Amino acid sequence: MFFQLKTVEEILSIVEGLDPLPEETIALEEALGRVAAYDVTSDEDLPGFSRASMDGMAVRARDTFGSTESLPALLEIVGDVIMGEVPNVTVGPGQAVRIPTGGMVPPGADAVVMIEYCHLLDDRTVEVARAVSPLENVIQPDDDVRKGAAVLPGGRRLRPQDLGVLAGLGCTRVPVVRRPNIAILSTGDEIVPVNQSPRLGQVRDINSHTLAAFCRAFGAIPRTLGLAPDQYEPLRAQVEQGLSDSDSVWISGGSSVGTRDLTIQVMESFPGMEILAHGVSISPGKPTIIARKGTRTVWGLPGHASSALVVAEVLLAPFLRRLSGETTPHLPGPVSVQAELARNIASAPGRDDYVRVRLRQKNGRLLADPLFGKSGLISPLVDADGLVCVDRFTEGLYQGDSVTVNLLRPGY
Amino acid sequence: MFFQLKTVEEILSIVEGLDPLPEETIALEEALGRVAAYDVTSDEDLPGFSRASMDGMAVRARDTFGSTESLPALLEIVGDVIMGEVPNVTVGPGQAVRIPTGGMVPPGADAVVMIEYCHLLDDRTVEVARAVSPLENVIQPDDDVRKGAAVLPGGRRLRPQDLGVLAGLGCTRVPVVRRPNIAILSTGDEIVPVNQSPRLGQVRDINSHTLAAFCRAFGAIPRTLGLAPDQYEPLRAQVEQGLSDSDSVWISGGSSVGTRDLTIQVMESFPGMEILAHGVSISPGKPTIIARKGTRTVWGLPGHASSALVVAEVLLAPFLRRLSGETTPHLPGPVSVQAELARNIASAPGRDDYVRVRLRQKNGRLLADPLFGKSGLISPLVDADGLVCVDRFTEGLYQGDSVTVNLLRPGY
Repeated sequence: MFFQLKTVEEILSIVEGLDPLPEETIALEEALGRVAAYDVTSDEDLPGFSRASMDGMAVRARDTFGSTESLPALLEIVGDVIMGEVPNVTVGPGQAVRIPTGGMVPPGADAVVMIEYCHLLDDRTVEVARAVSPLENVIQPDDDVRKGAAVLPGGRRLRPQDLGVLAGLGCTRVPVVRRPNIAILSTGDEIVPVNQSPRLGQVRDINSHTLAAFCRAFGAIPRTLGLAPDQYEPLRAQVEQGLSDSDSVWISGGSSVGTRDLTIQVMESFPGMEILAHGVSISPGKPTIIARKGTRTVWGLPGHASSALVVAEVLLAPFLRRLSGETTPHLPGPVSVQAELARNIASAPGRDDYVRVRLRQKNGRLLADPLFGKSGLISPLVDADGLVCVDRFTEGLYQGDSVTVNLLRPGY
Repeated sequence: MFFQLKTVEEILSIVEGLDPLPEETIALEEALGRVAAYDVTSDEDLPGFSRASMDGMAVRARDTFGSTESLPALLEIVGDVIMGEVPNVTVGPGQAVRIPTGGMVPPGADAVVMIEYCHLLDDRTVEVARAVSPLENVIQPDDDVRKGAAVLPGGRRLRPQDLGVLAGLGCTRVPVVRRPNIAILSTGDEIVPVNQSPRLGQVRDINSHTLAAFCRAFGAIPRTLGLAPDQYEPLRAQVEQGLSDSDSVWISGGSSVGTRDLTIQVMESFPGMEILAHGVSISPGKPTIIARKGTRTVWGLPGHASSALVVAEVLLAPFLRRLSGETTPHLPGPVSVQAELARNIASAPGRDDYVRVRLRQKNGRLLADPLFGKSGLISPLVDADGLVCVDRFTEGLYQGDSVTVNLLRPGY
């Protein structure tokens, strides 16, 4: 049976065709890292009243016009603004009112003179040694947010400052996209749980841990289903369970042809399951399989730990972003840095090669050292800071080339 | 009273003088984003036995030397490797054994021929159409990790792949640095809780929410103490509570001289409290105060929401990293991208100006648009993707300049 490998672009286009998950409403305190379900508009002005942005004297700007150190304006002090209260005084011509930063500008005043330029002659008289223009050192009622304005775009993963503007507007409940539930399953007769000592010929289950952590790093909720042997019935039962209560099932393992065939056979046994991709033209990661049943997807991932993680960075990150409704169109994809390649990289044309690199500073330059090593090893990825893609139209990169290093998912 | 402003470098040097928090041991499943307390070395080889990295035939490499499609080697098939089991067969001269990816290489064999180059003549005979060198397609017992080797450096914030290597080595418990507990307090008579409607002259508490979220984004544990009025006794009581059960107390508010004086007065009232900094030469963020009592610190932060967050990005991020024991010396500080400045930025010399910018792609270039706006506003920071620093020796930057944009903390 012959399968046409799909390109990364084709997989990403499949991913973009999936629907984001439905929305839910959560408490503001829990909204960090969640994705806004739709544009948030304000139903009030922020701050809602004129505020001083400096300590000083609230005045009529025109009373200060032409004032200098040598020719100051003399103003009469008629009161004080109390923080958090409506001023009980009006500023008339030739008058001034003491005001703290954040205080409400009293009626009549249209500017604040910084305290540094105010010299008190006595309790009732101030010399203003500098002219202020109207609105100087004043935050107007709608300066921060205007009523009806869009304050947050839907599709944004919420950052501390985004929660800040929601707090400022009194949004204690936030409409967000539901977090993806991901069922994770490791297959292979040679795999034992991490708390068990492997006998000769066996290895501990790495992928359940790396893929679950990868989910958490994206705000998805991993559900580790455990280990499945290379047998049709138990594997099918576990995939069925994953499909019943998760948005996606990730099966890692099956780097051998036999296991891969078994995974496909299990996927095809579900009525309505459509195989979207059987092999992807990337290295590592070629044996990746993607299937869909209704709104749910099943991913067959390579068994090699670092191959599975490269597929996660390249394909599952966009997948989780899509399910989560995240759209940040202006940013350059994954966070990346430019670096200078420290050694040549050879690469076969016809597939996108993702090469692990380690970054180091040298004489103010950022160098990227390629980490060579079989894709079956996890340790080169532990040493790595990022991935450099040598695309399928390029036969290699040279030492000294400027390359884009896509930084590997940080730990937080 | 005159205070010498401290530079960012001076503050960072104070921060580097603080001790990281003590270690604790946690479950592997909870270790994502935590910081390794010390170097982890392996007490076993990984994978621990010779494994095939391809499906194929385990052979003696010398039996294939000189083999080609037109002149293949003929080998006798003497058995199969079962996944996860010790092979019950030895490969002798002129013999081959079927092996799946990940299977244990049987004694006698020193290489694996890919299945693509093996043509079965009958059940017992295979034609090998390509020469393999010794160890080709074989992962050796210590290829991934050698017994006694350092696998993870202490001070690393653990990523999915780092958990992977720990899983592979059977580390179910991980020694990490304890997470910082941060007590957060908003001061100001004009501040009301977010679930309360502000009267004219009042505003909702933004900083408790942004600073708590900032803590969470760094793996610290925020404890919101609530609001304190601008009065000595209640403020002191709350700071005292924070000092009693937290590693650091963050007091925001006090952009007015009166409140700042009150904050200093409260700090100085604690026996043994040492004022480390009273004002920092950055903008926004100048009124920042830092004090220490034993191993605990108190930070007085600006009241303006976006000023407080800029101080968090510039000073509190390194502070939390230090407490958490994080050391990533080779990476270029906060994650940053190079972009082309889309407009001139003017800046006063003598202070480091942190200018909010929004990124956009244009004709394949990454442009940084400065977002101007008073530091009292939160919305420009909501529109921002990052900060550009115009240092105190520079009077401004020009349109077209290449600038480093320190990306603002993402939401996860």
